[in-house]
Amino acid sequence: MPLVPETFRRYLLASRPTGLADEETVRLDDAATVPDPADGQALIRVRYLSIDPTIRTWMDDAPGYLPPIAIGEVVRGGGIGEVVTSRSANYHPGDLVFGMTGWQEYVLADEGAAAMTTLPAGVDPAVALSVFGVTGLTAYFGLLDVGGPQAGDTVVVSGAAGATGSVVGQLARIAGASNVVGIAGSDEKCAWLTSELGFDHAVNYRSEPVGRRLAEVCPEGIDVFFDNVGGEILDAALANLALKARVVLCGAISQYNEARPVGPRNYLSLITRRARMEGFLILDYLDRFPEAQAAMAGWVMEGSIQHREHVVEGLEHSIDALNLLFNGGNTGKVIVRV
Amino acid sequence: MPLVPETFRRYLLASRPTGLADEETVRLDDAATVPDPADGQALIRVRYLSIDPTIRTWMDDAPGYLPPIAIGEVVRGGGIGEVVTSRSANYHPGDLVFGMTGWQEYVLADEGAAAMTTLPAGVDPAVALSVFGVTGLTAYFGLLDVGGPQAGDTVVVSGAAGATGSVVGQLARIAGASNVVGIAGSDEKCAWLTSELGFDHAVNYRSEPVGRRLAEVCPEGIDVFFDNVGGEILDAALANLALKARVVLCGAISQYNEARPVGPRNYLSLITRRARMEGFLILDYLDRFPEAQAAMAGWVMEGSIQHREHVVEGLEHSIDALNLLFNGGNTGKVIVRV
Repeated sequence: MPLVPETFRRYLLASRPTGLADEETVRLDDAATVPDPADGQALIRVRYLSIDPTIRTWMDDAPGYLPPIAIGEVVRGGGIGEVVTSRSANYHPGDLVFGMTGWQEYVLADEGAAAMTTLPAGVDPAVALSVFGVTGLTAYFGLLDVGGPQAGDTVVVSGAAGATGSVVGQLARIAGASNVVGIAGSDEKCAWLTSELGFDHAVNYRSEPVGRRLAEVCPEGIDVFFDNVGGEILDAALANLALKARVVLCGAISQYNEARPVGPRNYLSLITRRARMEGFLILDYLDRFPEAQAAMAGWVMEGSIQHREHVVEGLEHSIDALNLLFNGGNTGKVIVRV
Repeated sequence: MPLVPETFRRYLLASRPTGLADEETVRLDDAATVPDPADGQALIRVRYLSIDPTIRTWMDDAPGYLPPIAIGEVVRGGGIGEVVTSRSANYHPGDLVFGMTGWQEYVLADEGAAAMTTLPAGVDPAVALSVFGVTGLTAYFGLLDVGGPQAGDTVVVSGAAGATGSVVGQLARIAGASNVVGIAGSDEKCAWLTSELGFDHAVNYRSEPVGRRLAEVCPEGIDVFFDNVGGEILDAALANLALKARVVLCGAISQYNEARPVGPRNYLSLITRRARMEGFLILDYLDRFPEAQAAMAGWVMEGSIQHREHVVEGLEHSIDALNLLFNGGNTGKVIVRV
């Protein structure tokens, strides 16, 4: 039997944040008892956490696509762990598994609602969480299915240096877009987009007037806008749509920490441009994950899609890691190594 | 030769309104010279004006689907007139013609950009402007093409007692919707919707909490929301969408007189409900007008679609007629008899 401690660390939602999460609202419990797996269960040592903007939305007491995290509950989130002990034929000690681990060092997997998926051998866990994981698949289905880019289109993505946005721009190029534009929050990020990822243009929203710059670099208007940000950036894009444009709503990181979100004032351009704005959730595409992962693997291997992971060391920095997504501190996928 | 006066009355845009149009911003010119038709032209005596919310948007100096009305120009708008004298084989004295007449007593039609369409004999001009006109066709293409109602759907329309909204609800029933809900601004309007037009429910937005009432009368959520209003009513609908809902953006009468429009705060429900919001313009459907008019004529004759016109007497009341659309004073299509 491997050495398992008696207690472990985990983060519980203590109260609902107004604004960014902090150590008052998300509290450390450093003396949780490591559970014994029952029949059909396995004990998992969590190794990596996938840090995603949507985690912040689950902390609000608001209707969503999943119920809010309850007060006193472990912070919900995806991750990868290693099977420690198993009383299920589905889990073998030493295997790496992916699932909803939560922000904690140990968790039980089962064969039902808390089932986890064994990672194929040879897949780097960080890459499994980024380009082959929910992040990459969000870009794949959101851009290709909802956005429907056509050859010659102008495609613009906000949060372009983030985990999903950086993949969206590269997928747009693969889909034949002739003009790919990213909006990001620093000159370094913008340089990464244009010099390494093949974006045609990048707009630094902290130092440039986004609407005016979009008008300059999208002279024929925006055919597909993939939005991770909301707020003024969404409005700037709405003001520059081409006829029959598609606005793909993936998220709104500018709004998740606001008590009262702001709606897009320029939404009536959807009428004058005969355009549509559409949301999606990757949960609806579960049966197509194998198709998407195979396609993404091919593009990664041939070098058409590059990716970057921003690894934060230590479970104790999970809150800071989450906040990186909202203060612009990350480039690429944020992962916590537990 | 018929008796034609030397001068005529017309309304010119004197300055851009902030808020409702009034006699300062839209000025009477009562001594315009009646023009002589050149070769290929006809002189038209305007008889009816179609009063539509979009006219107010053309008074703003803002990008739209048509250029703004220039300062000093006749107020743009559709209407029906009678051919007085003609130097074109396309126009015959005594015929009724439909086109962009503007707010004036006389106008020239030609065979090019200012061409007008001869009304078939036997069609009541008021009906030609309402249910068979742009108003009815807006309901037809917006609901059936953009909204795509399915049998068993819940369809909700705002501005439901207006010219377009009242037709939308009846078309929803024809398309097989099992629950048709209208939002309107008085108990009289609501009673008209449910007792005469066959709506299942009506919500009076002036006396009832719209969001809560929509939750009550749409227990399975809204599949299609046809929006003429914007603002808080759009937000209330967004909070009550069914999965995969379609929000059809037709207009936003609550916003057209606002200096700084408000965007829908609840737009992120488009993500959680995997829904889409889409705008349209009837200009894109010109080639399908005959199909739509034939279908509408059939439904009107069999009694499946009822309609009402709100006729205002006298060109001098055109501004008041326009403002009826924004203060809720009309039921059905607003028409000025010139």
